[in-house]
Amino acid sequence: MTGQHGTPILAVDIGGTKILTALFSADGKMLAKDVCPTLADEGVKPVIERLCSAINDILKQNNLKASQLGGIGIACAGGIDSGRGVVVTPSPNMAGWADIPLADIIRERFKVSAFIINDASAAALGEHRSGAGMGVNNLVLFTLGTGIGGGIIANGELYLGAVGAAAEIGHMTIDDDGPECGCGNTGCLEMLASGRAVERDAVKRLNQGGKSSLSEMAGGKAENITAEMVGEAAQNGDTLALDILNRAAYYLGIGMVNIVNIFSPEMIVLGGGMAELGDLFIGPGKKMVVERAFPVSSRAVRIVTAQLGNEAGVYGAAAFARDRSKRRTA
Amino acid sequence: MTGQHGTPILAVDIGGTKILTALFSADGKMLAKDVCPTLADEGVKPVIERLCSAINDILKQNNLKASQLGGIGIACAGGIDSGRGVVVTPSPNMAGWADIPLADIIRERFKVSAFIINDASAAALGEHRSGAGMGVNNLVLFTLGTGIGGGIIANGELYLGAVGAAAEIGHMTIDDDGPECGCGNTGCLEMLASGRAVERDAVKRLNQGGKSSLSEMAGGKAENITAEMVGEAAQNGDTLALDILNRAAYYLGIGMVNIVNIFSPEMIVLGGGMAELGDLFIGPGKKMVVERAFPVSSRAVRIVTAQLGNEAGVYGAAAFARDRSKRRTA
Repeated sequence: MTGQHGTPILAVDIGGTKILTALFSADGKMLAKDVCPTLADEGVKPVIERLCSAINDILKQNNLKASQLGGIGIACAGGIDSGRGVVVTPSPNMAGWADIPLADIIRERFKVSAFIINDASAAALGEHRSGAGMGVNNLVLFTLGTGIGGGIIANGELYLGAVGAAAEIGHMTIDDDGPECGCGNTGCLEMLASGRAVERDAVKRLNQGGKSSLSEMAGGKAENITAEMVGEAAQNGDTLALDILNRAAYYLGIGMVNIVNIFSPEMIVLGGGMAELGDLFIGPGKKMVVERAFPVSSRAVRIVTAQLGNEAGVYGAAAFARDRSKRRTA
Repeated sequence: MTGQHGTPILAVDIGGTKILTALFSADGKMLAKDVCPTLADEGVKPVIERLCSAINDILKQNNLKASQLGGIGIACAGGIDSGRGVVVTPSPNMAGWADIPLADIIRERFKVSAFIINDASAAALGEHRSGAGMGVNNLVLFTLGTGIGGGIIANGELYLGAVGAAAEIGHMTIDDDGPECGCGNTGCLEMLASGRAVERDAVKRLNQGGKSSLSEMAGGKAENITAEMVGEAAQNGDTLALDILNRAAYYLGIGMVNIVNIFSPEMIVLGGGMAELGDLFIGPGKKMVVERAFPVSSRAVRIVTAQLGNEAGVYGAAAFARDRSKRRTA
């Protein structure tokens, strides 16, 4: 494989529920992939052991040794210091991941250079190199899932800010009087437009006696409602579900207007489960960008959905490891 | 002068009240400067004539011909398309400046390459090359004046976005239920934390019967109150003025937290008249960044005041013209 494709890169995306591993050729083509559960609840050490097993497995399946790799790229949720290779602050789904020197751990275990990048920044880099944003100089990716993350490409390059934690666009205040967020801030976009916000609103509305097909979908237990259910009910014309989704879509629109005014990117890429609802969720925001953002900037931006799905993170982690390895050997 | 300092650059900053002209050496040192009134109310053509006279004057004063220049850099308020060299949308103080191909006009008049850049982006570039942000890779400048503008340096380079209109940080919604802004958006930072917002609040509070030394300062006419007066009264301990300023400072804090979470810059540079109030206006926001922003990012950012005062724009315009001329001849 090495001879055929140049030095391969191994990439990992550690999510709250799944660890995705993949091998990439030197020119960024995916050669193989595999997936295993994260089981994040078991704590940091068992997850790291599972991560190492997953790396060994995909190497073995492809007749490779770690020493044949050009590097290992790791996409991970949370506050990442890419320079030091440390998970500094945990994401909500990865309790205990505070000050974990993950790049060093992997480097020592496999004797190969390892690099770590925030998962949403990785997704932005992945979409830029291999997905919706190829050839685009300036783009902002929104990951619209349970939470809201982001990634930035500026002047054709990944933008990570001071240490690697830039693009927490889910945590910009858009309603200073809004609900307190777990991050310590108030009225964050994530509190108002994420899957979790939609679920919270649905539970509240049903508990207040709202009539909706959601009650039946959730087996009569409001707390079982998921954002997917709200999306499905809305697609079927359920008034209450449509109402909840429209409210979240309005806040997403405000977030997009802010990003267009601040970044004036050529492209906004919308990824994550909520983006799959399409114009039902994204449409109002597109309209708001035209109506509210600076005309110079709103005329220049295209708002599109992501192309790489849940593989964007490994594509980006591989590109990141490739870029950083080159920089070191240059 | 040409022999001694290499090819000089001429820079202009067209503001709502003043046109600042300056000559710079090839290595970015200011050699001479001059100032004349804009008289923006007279309309676009007279202002362009005054701009051309100002350019001729500073050339003559320094025994230079336009043909000896390496380029002319023009900082201008409004929505700028730097690629086409056009003022696309006017700033509130420059009525009529819509779709003005200013770079072409200056290029044709003086037969020398000309480049145009938004004034706040120019100020950011100026502070980065010659002021508070020297050696800093990622910084965001806030211009805190009558309005609020911004400029971005990302990965060591000026960031202008798709066409040149990025960094309208004064027009991010921080209160979706807030007052409508002239820009078409709602609850913009500029509507809540600018000099104009402070003035509007002061007039409202006095008209509601509030007691304050501001009444006397404004000669009994609330509508004469300026943000400077509110700052002065607050510095002298006037309770109502302090209250107004604290409210604006709180909103500025929200804006800074958003920028820290979105950009995670090494530095925030605060310029403009309101920044001169120092910690009275900036202090609360610094504290909010520590309390509310992501720790990885808040630990990495320094919040400082600008160093180049109202010359930041010409410093930046000169650097911009120098960079773009090099790119063309490269």
